[in-house]
Amino acid sequence: MNNSRNLIVALAFLSIFISEECAKAQKATWIYYPGDYEIWLGNQVQNRRTERGTFFPPFWRMDSHYVLVEFSKKIDLLNEEAINIKVEGQYYVKIDGKLLFGSPEKVIIPAGKHSINIKVFNQASVPSLFIDGTSIKSDNSWLVTFEDKEWIDESGKASDTSSGTVYVNAASWNFYSPDSSPSKFILATRPMSVVSSERKKDGILYDFGKETFGFARFRGLKGKGMLNIYFGESSEEALSKDHCETLDRFPVDNVLAKDFTSNTSKAFRYIYVEKDNSLSYDSLSMLYEYLPLDYKGSFRCNDEQINKIWDVAAYTLHLTTREFFVDGIKRDRWMWSGDAYQSYLMNYYLFFDSPVVSRTIFALRGKDPVTSHINTIMDYTFYWFMSIYDFYQYTGNKQLIEQLYPRMKSLMEYCLSCRNADGMMQGLAGDWVFIDWADFKMSKAGEVSFEQILFCRSLETMALCASLLDDTANAIIYNNLAAELRSRLFSTFWSDKENAFIHNRENGVKSSQVTPFTNIFAVLFGYLDQDKTNAVKENVLLNPNALKITTPYMRFYELEALCALGEQKHVLNEIRNYWGGMISLGATTFWEKFNPAETNPGLLAMYGRPFGKSLCHAWGASPIYLLGKYYLGIRPTSPGYKTFIVEPSLGDLQWMEGDVPTPDGKIHLYCSQKEIRVKADSGTGTLRFKSLSKPVSKGVEIRKTGDKQYEMSILKDQEYVVKYKNGE
Amino acid sequence: MNNSRNLIVALAFLSIFISEECAKAQKATWIYYPGDYEIWLGNQVQNRRTERGTFFPPFWRMDSHYVLVEFSKKIDLLNEEAINIKVEGQYYVKIDGKLLFGSPEKVIIPAGKHSINIKVFNQASVPSLFIDGTSIKSDNSWLVTFEDKEWIDESGKASDTSSGTVYVNAASWNFYSPDSSPSKFILATRPMSVVSSERKKDGILYDFGKETFGFARFRGLKGKGMLNIYFGESSEEALSKDHCETLDRFPVDNVLAKDFTSNTSKAFRYIYVEKDNSLSYDSLSMLYEYLPLDYKGSFRCNDEQINKIWDVAAYTLHLTTREFFVDGIKRDRWMWSGDAYQSYLMNYYLFFDSPVVSRTIFALRGKDPVTSHINTIMDYTFYWFMSIYDFYQYTGNKQLIEQLYPRMKSLMEYCLSCRNADGMMQGLAGDWVFIDWADFKMSKAGEVSFEQILFCRSLETMALCASLLDDTANAIIYNNLAAELRSRLFSTFWSDKENAFIHNRENGVKSSQVTPFTNIFAVLFGYLDQDKTNAVKENVLLNPNALKITTPYMRFYELEALCALGEQKHVLNEIRNYWGGMISLGATTFWEKFNPAETNPGLLAMYGRPFGKSLCHAWGASPIYLLGKYYLGIRPTSPGYKTFIVEPSLGDLQWMEGDVPTPDGKIHLYCSQKEIRVKADSGTGTLRFKSLSKPVSKGVEIRKTGDKQYEMSILKDQEYVVKYKNGE
Repeated sequence: MNNSRNLIVALAFLSIFISEECAKAQKATWIYYPGDYEIWLGNQVQNRRTERGTFFPPFWRMDSHYVLVEFSKKIDLLNEEAINIKVEGQYYVKIDGKLLFGSPEKVIIPAGKHSINIKVFNQASVPSLFIDGTSIKSDNSWLVTFEDKEWIDESGKASDTSSGTVYVNAASWNFYSPDSSPSKFILATRPMSVVSSERKKDGILYDFGKETFGFARFRGLKGKGMLNIYFGESSEEALSKDHCETLDRFPVDNVLAKDFTSNTSKAFRYIYVEKDNSLSYDSLSMLYEYLPLDYKGSFRCNDEQINKIWDVAAYTLHLTTREFFVDGIKRDRWMWSGDAYQSYLMNYYLFFDSPVVSRTIFALRGKDPVTSHINTIMDYTFYWFMSIYDFYQYTGNKQLIEQLYPRMKSLMEYCLSCRNADGMMQGLAGDWVFIDWADFKMSKAGEVSFEQILFCRSLETMALCASLLDDTANAIIYNNLAAELRSRLFSTFWSDKENAFIHNRENGVKSSQVTPFTNIFAVLFGYLDQDKTNAVKENVLLNPNALKITTPYMRFYELEALCALGEQKHVLNEIRNYWGGMISLGATTFWEKFNPAETNPGLLAMYGRPFGKSLCHAWGASPIYLLGKYYLGIRPTSPGYKTFIVEPSLGDLQWMEGDVPTPDGKIHLYCSQKEIRVKADSGTGTLRFKSLSKPVSKGVEIRKTGDKQYEMSILKDQEYVVKYKNGE
Repeated sequence: MNNSRNLIVALAFLSIFISEECAKAQKATWIYYPGDYEIWLGNQVQNRRTERGTFFPPFWRMDSHYVLVEFSKKIDLLNEEAINIKVEGQYYVKIDGKLLFGSPEKVIIPAGKHSINIKVFNQASVPSLFIDGTSIKSDNSWLVTFEDKEWIDESGKASDTSSGTVYVNAASWNFYSPDSSPSKFILATRPMSVVSSERKKDGILYDFGKETFGFARFRGLKGKGMLNIYFGESSEEALSKDHCETLDRFPVDNVLAKDFTSNTSKAFRYIYVEKDNSLSYDSLSMLYEYLPLDYKGSFRCNDEQINKIWDVAAYTLHLTTREFFVDGIKRDRWMWSGDAYQSYLMNYYLFFDSPVVSRTIFALRGKDPVTSHINTIMDYTFYWFMSIYDFYQYTGNKQLIEQLYPRMKSLMEYCLSCRNADGMMQGLAGDWVFIDWADFKMSKAGEVSFEQILFCRSLETMALCASLLDDTANAIIYNNLAAELRSRLFSTFWSDKENAFIHNRENGVKSSQVTPFTNIFAVLFGYLDQDKTNAVKENVLLNPNALKITTPYMRFYELEALCALGEQKHVLNEIRNYWGGMISLGATTFWEKFNPAETNPGLLAMYGRPFGKSLCHAWGASPIYLLGKYYLGIRPTSPGYKTFIVEPSLGDLQWMEGDVPTPDGKIHLYCSQKEIRVKADSGTGTLRFKSLSKPVSKGVEIRKTGDKQYEMSILKDQEYVVKYKNGE
């Protein structure tokens, strides 16, 4: 019986494997060198930022794709086969080592074993290839190299490229049509209308009802003169012609009325239009520009304020999830590694779109040599390391680690080479030690404890990845480095007097300042014993006199740490006050910074500019993550949710219901004070809950694991209904 | 008297200094990041190779320019000034830290101190800038960086970029007009006519009279059909439709007769045209494509064969001196570091065009990280190092070393990391150990003595450059490494039995083969004591039974070594036989390979292809170098010919006369058996010669330095006439 069951499981696995392989082989896709398209697209996207009509590019190094790459594939054909070849770039085709004339678009490959080599040069965009035949199709099984080392000697004999050339598997995204080549990629758009408009002294103020993103569209634009468009996330901003962050000025010369769409997309809720009197137009609307994404995750509960917060957070995350995860949609529209790190985590609980995660990770890293930290920010380098193992844990996709491991190693080499005599990292010339925007004074100089804890976690991540790739020697090295640093972290920064980690040490002098950051991460990384955990909870996390975090950015980790310590009830109220606070001030997306304690908490100014603050900032969307991971309580316990835990926590809610996406479907949970229903599309889970009564689930064994503490197993495709009495 | 003279000299220097500074400030030029234009242009040029109508790119990694760079300049104006701004790319302009609206093309800068920052993004070609005002002009005094590290904090305060940002001086070439932007650069062309034509069975064979390069041009092309153009360096090649190396096929559809010029330039002497009968044209001519260069060096003597050889060599060098120094004009048209190294040296005696040297050096090096040897060839990495110090020695321009030193260090790091346990380099997987094309068998495996001697010289070069840049610590390291390797070279490869260096050691076993290469370079580098020098001369260089070199490539060094040992008479005959031999076989430019001892020395085949051999190969042009350096006998003894030596050697000539270019003019020499006339435009020289009689020069002191050996000083701008009796 057992045996036959195993056989059925094995067969089922086999059929999945076969069908996946076939599905893979059935679809040709545009392929390119891993990371190159991401770097190229990142250059395009990040150089679109404007500030008051002026080009405003990043200040870090931007890299380029390899301009010359060779794709290759060995094939074995039963029958002769015609292949169609599409290439972005100049190219040759070699069959069995022989060059074909010109750059053929169609080639007949005879039956039998053959090798295909196609080499492509493209300076302006990424060399990429699309091959479509009956069985031969460009996909990730093709190899690619940027240096094929194939020279010929005097006699015409070609060199052996098999040992000296570094081949990797080609990368792809979703370019499945020969005509949708990578360089042509644009986001989707759809028309949207103005909700209301208001005539002002010299122009018209249009309101689109909520924060949005796209192109302004004028119907029936006519005449000769200047058309001035002022964008605003607030009406104040749109009406402030001298201080709005983005604007467009178009000279128009239309004898006949024409429709006109602005050439660059902008973030706004309001548009204020002023024009020369000689101009006229019929109406203004917009083309909403977005990345099509499935909302795979969901959350609903009895508290409508929390539901609203979840919705606004989801919309915020969608607006900032574009070609890449960008920080905010109005201003930078850049990839910032620390910001993106949070988007990744939120994404796992909403879209579960892994391509946008790997795109962002690749683009942030760029290429060797390393000349500075990622985004020039030391902490942002560390989040980058951490993001890669997370990706593996949530998606089960090891390929990203394989592809990036050489660049992980060289970036870590850079970090290690920057250590001081005490083996710690401190900001050197040109390094930005960011941590957080804070309303209190803190030093960024010397050895900042927060940087060491992230550095330590990064070393642990390197050790994990090294092990995973069987690089045992380096795994040991990284583990030793991490252990040593962790011990220094405690000996240097843990203060028995403050009973918490202190902020930094400068020129050998320890600060007495306790900032929340290091303490929060020590909880999240599980670095603290029970005594120290309690101390941090008391003295930092729940201490009303502790220094206050005023960005959703660090509130993410602060509230996560509290959830990890079982403070869901408290955190729910924090969510209501903080994110609910923004909504009650009219927010339709969440902000870059918010301090409810300020006299004017709705302040629009930041960076010394009256409308500098971003009102749609990815790091504002953390309730998605917190509600999914710590209320629905669902998270993977092995890569790709092969095993997972469901540990619902209602806080003070009566009921909640939602989905958490996984690589092969989703996990659905309903939880009320009396009933838990759970169903998973794949993997094997453990449901863990507290009950005041003996829980019951028909035909299922429920294990008691402690006082009021129960556990039961969740097999895939089965709905479990548990009757219990919530004992949180 | 002395004092006033010094004062005059000082004033003269000052005025030169001032006028140069003014000249510099008077001309705006397009500027860019050092090396970036070279890399970009190198990609364009090297990807133009075709083989029988098919794109044929290099097999090594091609790098890219920095896509985003910032140019900056601090200025102090007496008066307000308008500047015109031209940019290749998207850009912003910041004056005193404030962004100007849009991308302005004209800006008024008020009087006083100001800073200008212009940041440019360009993915497809090199970000470059042209600024022209009354006093403000883009030139090499502008700074440029690929990572400006200017972020702003929450309050709007910009970071201090002064310490953390790596600025370098911007680079330029000769783009002095706002409209001649770098990406638009093309070589010059001029029309040239066919010399003769001959009707063949299916087409017409055109002869342009000599090897040339350019675009085929049809006058009055009419009708619909296919136009087939077969190029040949020989008539055999052009007529071999199936085996000629380059060809073009153009579909034509002209109702009215039109002139047509082919879109890619090719090397040829002959063009064979076949066309469909439905097509007609009036005539064929060509557009000769070339780099405009001054022939600054010259050589004439009583031997017309030598004069002819010099002319053919000069033409060969000109044809291969293009955007860069390429190997040959028919086939690769690539930069090969070992080939280019010889072009640099020849160039110092002909064009003295330093930009084409530095362009080639930059393009060959590309960017970090180093993933293989230059051109994947180990020896070619070493020639690259050696070329940089030579450049300094001939031109006196230290800037190239300054610009390249970081890339020199990282390339040397790569070499050092490739050493085996004995501290030597041997070919690893993917490494090409080239040395030379040879007709005898030689091993490229294990520790090849030739690679170690070049490696040793490269380490010495690194030490010289490190000293020059006051990097004393590294100078010591490199010197020690060089000394150690040099000692190992002798202990491992010098054979007392053979009285010469042996070829290699494989798996601990020393070969007994003596090849000429290491021995030649040991002479050239001055590594040998008198006994060993004599031994090498006897056993290798002048030994008729020694292994024969059959490329002009290694004959360059072989004959140079013999000249260095005073064998000018012998070498002159070698030149007559070898280069004269090619001419007598009809060569109009010199070849890639030539073995006068072969049954068919005019063989056109190579690389297993009937017309594979290049008949216009840069490394064929070495007589220019030999005649300039070892017959006119002129070479710098300190950087930039500040001091130099003139040591004429007639060999068996009756008289010779010529110019050797220097950075500030030229050195002219006439030398017969009885008279020497010399005049230098700058620097201080030493004339050294042998005379059987006591030499006389009016009003000049001539020092006797040995038996028949005399020396006298050459001051600039003075013509010296020496009566003597040649005592060679």
